[in-house]
Amino acid sequence: MVLQTYRLDREPYYCPTGDEIALFEAAHADRMPVMLKGPTGCGKTRFIEHMAWRLGRPLVTVACNEDLTASDLVGRYLLEAEGTVWQDGPLTLAVRHGAICYLDEIVEARADTTVVIHPLTDERRALPLDKRNELVAAHPDFQLVIAYNPGYQSVVKDLKESTKQRFAALEFGYPAAGIEADIVAHEAGIGPDLARQVVAVGERSRNLRGRGLEEGASTRMLIHAGRLIARGVAPEAACRMAIVLPLTDDPDLRDALAAAVGACF
Amino acid sequence: MVLQTYRLDREPYYCPTGDEIALFEAAHADRMPVMLKGPTGCGKTRFIEHMAWRLGRPLVTVACNEDLTASDLVGRYLLEAEGTVWQDGPLTLAVRHGAICYLDEIVEARADTTVVIHPLTDERRALPLDKRNELVAAHPDFQLVIAYNPGYQSVVKDLKESTKQRFAALEFGYPAAGIEADIVAHEAGIGPDLARQVVAVGERSRNLRGRGLEEGASTRMLIHAGRLIARGVAPEAACRMAIVLPLTDDPDLRDALAAAVGACF
Amino acid sequence: MVLQTYRLDREPYYCPTGDEIALFEAAHADRMPVMLKGPTGCGKTRFIEHMAWRLGRPLVTVACNEDLTASDLVGRYLLEAEGTVWQDGPLTLAVRHGAICYLDEIVEARADTTVVIHPLTDERRALPLDKRNELVAAHPDFQLVIAYNPGYQSVVKDLKESTKQRFAALEFGYPAAGIEADIVAHEAGIGPDLARQVVAVGERSRNLRGRGLEEGASTRMLIHAGRLIARGVAPEAACRMAIVLPLTDDPDLRDALAAAVGACF
Amino acid sequence: MVLQTYRLDREPYYCPTGDEIALFEAAHADRMPVMLKGPTGCGKTRFIEHMAWRLGRPLVTVACNEDLTASDLVGRYLLEAEGTVWQDGPLTLAVRHGAICYLDEIVEARADTTVVIHPLTDERRALPLDKRNELVAAHPDFQLVIAYNPGYQSVVKDLKESTKQRFAALEFGYPAAGIEADIVAHEAGIGPDLARQVVAVGERSRNLRGRGLEEGASTRMLIHAGRLIARGVAPEAACRMAIVLPLTDDPDLRDALAAAVGACF
Amino acid sequence: MVLQTYRLDREPYYCPTGDEIALFEAAHADRMPVMLKGPTGCGKTRFIEHMAWRLGRPLVTVACNEDLTASDLVGRYLLEAEGTVWQDGPLTLAVRHGAICYLDEIVEARADTTVVIHPLTDERRALPLDKRNELVAAHPDFQLVIAYNPGYQSVVKDLKESTKQRFAALEFGYPAAGIEADIVAHEAGIGPDLARQVVAVGERSRNLRGRGLEEGASTRMLIHAGRLIARGVAPEAACRMAIVLPLTDDPDLRDALAAAVGACF
Amino acid sequence: MVLQTYRLDREPYYCPTGDEIALFEAAHADRMPVMLKGPTGCGKTRFIEHMAWRLGRPLVTVACNEDLTASDLVGRYLLEAEGTVWQDGPLTLAVRHGAICYLDEIVEARADTTVVIHPLTDERRALPLDKRNELVAAHPDFQLVIAYNPGYQSVVKDLKESTKQRFAALEFGYPAAGIEADIVAHEAGIGPDLARQVVAVGERSRNLRGRGLEEGASTRMLIHAGRLIARGVAPEAACRMAIVLPLTDDPDLRDALAAAVGACF
Repeated sequence: MVLQTYRLDREPYYCPTGDEIALFEAAHADRMPVMLKGPTGCGKTRFIEHMAWRLGRPLVTVACNEDLTASDLVGRYLLEAEGTVWQDGPLTLAVRHGAICYLDEIVEARADTTVVIHPLTDERRALPLDKRNELVAAHPDFQLVIAYNPGYQSVVKDLKESTKQRFAALEFGYPAAGIEADIVAHEAGIGPDLARQVVAVGERSRNLRGRGLEEGASTRMLIHAGRLIARGVAPEAACRMAIVLPLTDDPDLRDALAAAVGACF
Repeated sequence: MVLQTYRLDREPYYCPTGDEIALFEAAHADRMPVMLKGPTGCGKTRFIEHMAWRLGRPLVTVACNEDLTASDLVGRYLLEAEGTVWQDGPLTLAVRHGAICYLDEIVEARADTTVVIHPLTDERRALPLDKRNELVAAHPDFQLVIAYNPGYQSVVKDLKESTKQRFAALEFGYPAAGIEADIVAHEAGIGPDLARQVVAVGERSRNLRGRGLEEGASTRMLIHAGRLIARGVAPEAACRMAIVLPLTDDPDLRDALAAAVGACF
Repeated sequence: MVLQTYRLDREPYYCPTGDEIALFEAAHADRMPVMLKGPTGCGKTRFIEHMAWRLGRPLVTVACNEDLTASDLVGRYLLEAEGTVWQDGPLTLAVRHGAICYLDEIVEARADTTVVIHPLTDERRALPLDKRNELVAAHPDFQLVIAYNPGYQSVVKDLKESTKQRFAALEFGYPAAGIEADIVAHEAGIGPDLARQVVAVGERSRNLRGRGLEEGASTRMLIHAGRLIARGVAPEAACRMAIVLPLTDDPDLRDALAAAVGACF
Repeated sequence: MVLQTYRLDREPYYCPTGDEIALFEAAHADRMPVMLKGPTGCGKTRFIEHMAWRLGRPLVTVACNEDLTASDLVGRYLLEAEGTVWQDGPLTLAVRHGAICYLDEIVEARADTTVVIHPLTDERRALPLDKRNELVAAHPDFQLVIAYNPGYQSVVKDLKESTKQRFAALEFGYPAAGIEADIVAHEAGIGPDLARQVVAVGERSRNLRGRGLEEGASTRMLIHAGRLIARGVAPEAACRMAIVLPLTDDPDLRDALAAAVGACF
Repeated sequence: MVLQTYRLDREPYYCPTGDEIALFEAAHADRMPVMLKGPTGCGKTRFIEHMAWRLGRPLVTVACNEDLTASDLVGRYLLEAEGTVWQDGPLTLAVRHGAICYLDEIVEARADTTVVIHPLTDERRALPLDKRNELVAAHPDFQLVIAYNPGYQSVVKDLKESTKQRFAALEFGYPAAGIEADIVAHEAGIGPDLARQVVAVGERSRNLRGRGLEEGASTRMLIHAGRLIARGVAPEAACRMAIVLPLTDDPDLRDALAAAVGACF
Repeated sequence: MVLQTYRLDREPYYCPTGDEIALFEAAHADRMPVMLKGPTGCGKTRFIEHMAWRLGRPLVTVACNEDLTASDLVGRYLLEAEGTVWQDGPLTLAVRHGAICYLDEIVEARADTTVVIHPLTDERRALPLDKRNELVAAHPDFQLVIAYNPGYQSVVKDLKESTKQRFAALEFGYPAAGIEADIVAHEAGIGPDLARQVVAVGERSRNLRGRGLEEGASTRMLIHAGRLIARGVAPEAACRMAIVLPLTDDPDLRDALAAAVGACF
């Protein structure tokens, strides 16, 4: 089958924080376009992987960026010895064969990328391949999901209202401390007490957000720290390497973070 | 027939709000270029689909954007094994074979895209394919229709006066409450009472427009909420997912919208 | 003959407003480059079509825009199976075979487009095809004509002095009321009284120019209104669709224009 | 011979205004790079044509503009059936075969265009074709001449000091009244009295320079007016068409120019 | 083996300044993405070469810059006689065959370059080749390392938070004086006393940082000075050529640096 | 031999002004990257030509500019009948076969151009050809030399600190009056007295630098004046043509320069 390599072969670990699974299932039953909102590293990508596995759908992921063209999504002509040959892009593959297409960091995309998804998100459910004069009707299983980090948006870089209004939305945040400690312990292979200490560092860093720090430590950073500890690095050195140094170059903020680390171990 | 895939095979549901059908028919009888004005998600695309079906014309739709080139509209040379071969773009297809060509979000297009339609909108009714040195005379059934959202325009991004003056215009708004409830009930498959409650949420959101909210909920959003309800999601959760979360990230506006939802159910 | 498709096969309707025909004939006798100045939709394109028909010359028209390259005008190499083949652009065609070449909205063109015409507008009367190392001497019948709307010019977008000074100029405005009513009656197929009423709406709209309105209604808009009336639309609805709605989205200006319409019918 | 089409087959009319011919001959004897400075339409192009004829050299002219690339000057690979084939650009042709290469409006050129001429203007007298890894030694007869209009220069668009200092310079202005009248009479085919009157209009227009008018009428414009008169147009109408209308759209300046025309006839 | 040319064939000289080797080894054991932070010329590149040698991994280095495209990293189609052939880029080579991939000056890269590494830096450890519709699973030995100079970052040019949080970090500075003198003596082949004098010049220059000097002399500059001395240049002339003249054009700073040189010899 | 056309076949005339020859020889013995600093036309290019001749190395010169791409330096694939063929660029030629590569006006180059030279200027001495996945080890005779005019640098256009610190530097200025007169006499073929007078004009022009004049006359300009005199032009006319007119269009500065000329003859 065409999309075989896009199927997940084992269950991605995901720890729910509310009714997000039921809500997504209702939207998916209707093939309604969905937007996942939340800060970096809080688990949006993991959630959609989990849902694709749970619903038995292939998952085509595209990391959007300002240099991604509509052709990169939709497809292009390649020059072969026997002339030009059309090659479907990842979005067209998903539309044609019935995958969940996940556009990560959608606001980074250029205008042509966001406009190209419009006819897929209303009653038409069709993708016009203008360069081929082909109108691809979406496979009944196709669903479009986009990720969106509200903390990043500026006036110059935000979704247009006419795009936003085409999506239902689910909101994500950092997990509650107990759940996050379970995640860190599970993913890093460290004991629950150490995991709770690492999570405490993360929470203190998030309190510094807006006081100089653009964002607090993500769950991913806490897992990094846990893994270094599991490899035998001292906890304070591990937190410095995985959390403090990547987060900031400001000496005062570093002192504040180092104090937070010291207070937790 | 060349444009067969661009014909609509069943009647698109459309609920008229005034004399727009008669006015469009008069303009179409003269093949006069028409501009559809109105906010996002109020039914402009559905209207033109309905008119194309009603008039028995194929409909070629192009979603304009700032990366769309004149070549994307008009056509280009493809390199085949036997040399370059010309391929008509969607506009040329419509001009040559007699479709309604619908350019959505025309103000997003680049200058070359808007200028290319000028000779099609005056007495000449011709499309010059400069790269082929061909002058395509428009098919007698060809008509050009563009969509335009006045709420979006800024000084840097507006139609040039010399383009505007080539079109007659029809203006669209949100339907009256009773009509909108009929639409939501019909499209989402929920009962009339629930539909009226959902529409009431939409109206309250539109009152917040200009008080922080860029636009109120479109009819499309209300249908999304209705469909989630039809899938068994509680009405307040459905409105939160389909209306509140996509519309804004501002905590105060979210509270106001949540209160509006609470007041309607 | 090469330019056969660029010949006009019947007389384009044109109603003179002064001695412009005689002046153009004198300039044409000398093959002097001519610039047509005037607001949008006042008849510049129709005039040059009329003159081309009257003088028996083919007419090659190019709508300039900021994405039009010199190659689009001059020509390019196409890749054929037997290698690259040169294809003359529209300007080169006109230069080589003796047409009037009409560059519409010349100020929209990029720098390379305006510079490419310089050697055609002095004693050299030659077009250098740098990519072919060919110097095309202009056919004795070749003449260059450009259109220019002084109302649009800004500091950043104007003809360079060294370009301007290469052209003699003719100035166009809206026709006098009586002549304009004749034109509207002739083109829309309505009676003279109705035509005069429609023209009166146009004149009132032009008085609003500079008081919020960027431009008043062009003759083209008045013809649109006349045609809708001829199709059975009520005059006030026709004027609203063809004149008021396309001209402005400002509520006050719309009221003023609606009052003007009401006063004329 | 390769450059045959670049040879002038009859003497271009040129009326000297000082010792510019002798100075250019001295510079040419040394193949020294020369810059011709002066306002638009004052005869720089005619002068270099005259000198090329007088010295018996072919003349390769390139009108520079901000879209002209170094490849346009130097050459490029063309794709032929048997693979890519190098084609010399106009500059390379002149360098290889010994022409005068005249770069008109040099300040319009992009940085790569101006830098490419550096090794041709010092002791090296060589043109590196980087794309071919070829170093073309200049033919002994090659000379580089550029034109430069000081009135246009702004801070953002001027020759770099390291380019300027590679050229000796000759300065041009409008000819004295008597000489200019001779030129107008000769070129337009009108009598000496009419020519003097036309020249008087030109002089008055030049006095308005800096008082709203960017530049006064060039000799070229005066010749245009003379030619229209020779075709039977009344002198005042001819001056209006050839001088007043092209020069300005400002009503006050137009009145001043019209008064100047009235005073001269 | 594919990556043979990327293996280091002898031990690169590296003088540790702390526990950076042990910390990197722990991160490498987990294939955790690592960011090396520090000023220019302090030894980041040498460190990663040393670690690649020590761990027995091939090292693929890419110097990022604002013109580097995602295709330059990931690969592209080349046109061969038998049609287009895919060629892996350096990042894909490293991912497929198990090298350490070192992206130098990552903040210079364009958005598409930084986004392309995201799926390689989380649980997915996969590189999507969108143009081939291939998802390359990373070789178990693959590790991603980036270099980052915090002194350069500005608001417009910094890593996005969602990128930063994917890396653990190690921080580098100039070595302590004794270590640096050992390095200079070893690399330049001069005696320890001379090396100490050269290092003293470097330290004085670093004290001028922020007082007009953007950065002080790097260890690399000190080695340059040492080598010129080893070639017989007088120490003061060597320091002037290798340190003072490259660092600044400001006369006062030059005097200060010259005085520093004078004080050390 | 591959680089034969890049060898100088006779000694370029160069008049030393200090110990620059010995210093360059010491740097060359170590193949240390060298930066030549100084104003336009003072002899940097002549110096490197002289050194290449003296050291018996081929010299590959590239005039950098903001449109020069890394591919122009490094090489590219050409499409031949039998498919794509790699062609080394000038830098790769020099690296592979052991030339001095001289990058003139390096600050004009784009970011990718400057970054591409980094691995050539540290211990690696290697040039990665990313598009070929080839790592070219530098020939033992390869040396990189760049030219840099400190007077031109602005904040937006300067070498990055991480580039600057890779080069030792030599500084050039205008020669002392006696030496410069020898140069002018030798190069222009005029007697020593006339040469001294011409040099006196140059010195006076340099005193005007910063008082309206961007730069004073270069030695090259003085040689131009000398050559015109040798061709029989009167000294004052020669100085006007070769020095005054090219340097400035400002009437006051022209008067000052004319007075300087008058005072010297």
